[in-house]
Amino acid sequence: VFLEKLRSAAQRNRSLLCVGLDPDAALAPAGLADDPDWVVRFNRGVIDATADLVCAYKPNVAFYEAMGERGWDALQRTIQAVPTGIPVIADAKRGDIGNTARAYAVALFEQLGADATTVSPYLGRDSLEPFLDYTDRAVLVLCKTSNPGGGDFQDLMCRFEGLDQPLYQAVARKASAWNVDGNVGLVVGATYPQELAAVRRLAPDLAILVPGVGAQAGDLAAAVRAAVDARGERAIITASRSVLYASRGPDWADAARGAARELRDAINVARATIA
Amino acid sequence: VFLEKLRSAAQRNRSLLCVGLDPDAALAPAGLADDPDWVVRFNRGVIDATADLVCAYKPNVAFYEAMGERGWDALQRTIQAVPTGIPVIADAKRGDIGNTARAYAVALFEQLGADATTVSPYLGRDSLEPFLDYTDRAVLVLCKTSNPGGGDFQDLMCRFEGLDQPLYQAVARKASAWNVDGNVGLVVGATYPQELAAVRRLAPDLAILVPGVGAQAGDLAAAVRAAVDARGERAIITASRSVLYASRGPDWADAARGAARELRDAINVARATIA
Repeated sequence: VFLEKLRSAAQRNRSLLCVGLDPDAALAPAGLADDPDWVVRFNRGVIDATADLVCAYKPNVAFYEAMGERGWDALQRTIQAVPTGIPVIADAKRGDIGNTARAYAVALFEQLGADATTVSPYLGRDSLEPFLDYTDRAVLVLCKTSNPGGGDFQDLMCRFEGLDQPLYQAVARKASAWNVDGNVGLVVGATYPQELAAVRRLAPDLAILVPGVGAQAGDLAAAVRAAVDARGERAIITASRSVLYASRGPDWADAARGAARELRDAINVARATIA
Repeated sequence: VFLEKLRSAAQRNRSLLCVGLDPDAALAPAGLADDPDWVVRFNRGVIDATADLVCAYKPNVAFYEAMGERGWDALQRTIQAVPTGIPVIADAKRGDIGNTARAYAVALFEQLGADATTVSPYLGRDSLEPFLDYTDRAVLVLCKTSNPGGGDFQDLMCRFEGLDQPLYQAVARKASAWNVDGNVGLVVGATYPQELAAVRRLAPDLAILVPGVGAQAGDLAAAVRAAVDARGERAIITASRSVLYASRGPDWADAARGAARELRDAINVARATIA
């Protein structure tokens, strides 16, 4: 079950840090990208260097799709390279209906073997059912995203259950209601610590995936304090580029390890300062 | 440019019908699915049998992803099998941010060579920008979807530009505002003809993709009349299973042609009865 796997990895490694595995040839260590199989080699190097410092890994499917058919193979082999006991979140932000949603669930949970995936809420409850049917995996619902345009719709004031509230809060309430099997979580960007705190109040038991630290430059401590649950857990603080591309020299794996350790420790300092 | 390509295919074939290319081994003609390459063989057969009856084809990417790495190859070869002059809509319902959205745009528009793709509005304007930058392609924004759960959020009353309105109407207004290069469209399910009419009023110039006829059983005539623009154009009426799997016998290609012709003609009858 996802939450248990997450908790035991988080406790074993004393870490809420999730490393995003987002290969980008333009940022790759010098010379490495000449190897046609560089993505898997690079990801393996990063995983080997950080596997005792993280609570999860999160490959973003888009970067693999952009490589064409060999991308899917690289993604599969990347997921296989993650040690058992560390959950993998396939960041796919899918959202479709009926048998199409089922096909995506099969692709992500069975073909790729991911422990969790991100989904868009826009199509509503029945679009998530094929994912929710996998009670041993998790479905992380986009709620308040880290990008500037996220507010276009997410911040619109809506009438929901008799209350006027921003759309993202209605999403948080709905997602909590959908969490009957303990396999629903939310995605809230680190760039919005106040909104993150509001979501945590509305969904005290849900795992919250928090992208946007590191390269996206949210205030780490504020985000961590807002995201964790009452026991200081169930927050998945994600950094990608700032860890992966900490160095472009031959020391890239060591540099990734150094950046991951620094982030993990900074997250733990922030957790320790909660009242 | 997408709208021109769409119009010229629609005029040449006197058709607003779009055939969804959604391979499903469980529904495939008897014997065919034993061939490991059946998907491309089947799609080619359907395309050959219907290419003079449609205004577009729409492969749903999920079905190909569910096949693993050979699925991407099958999708690429399917798109290559569509005659030049007929636009291809890669139904991917993507929605992500920044460089990730860019990676999806590269995958769909460059790797696959699709003329248009579907996207989710939840992440807002900047999530669509990398797609909108391709001014010769089109971006079809999910607005009011055909599934029962679509209303969970799409029907919430929101305050937008000083007016209380359902969220899907706010999406239609925003999408119209984003249409500076004439490359934005909307997706509205055939199962909601009243909402479809409301969207057409809010977005008189946009192409509207209308899934949900055929297997999803919307009222075809009502949907067509609500969807077309003032000239009886710019609606893309999509059927998938009812055409693809019209017969499971050796006559499957002829049966697909028969079903497509019937639908095309029924759509034209409905268009002709607009006041």
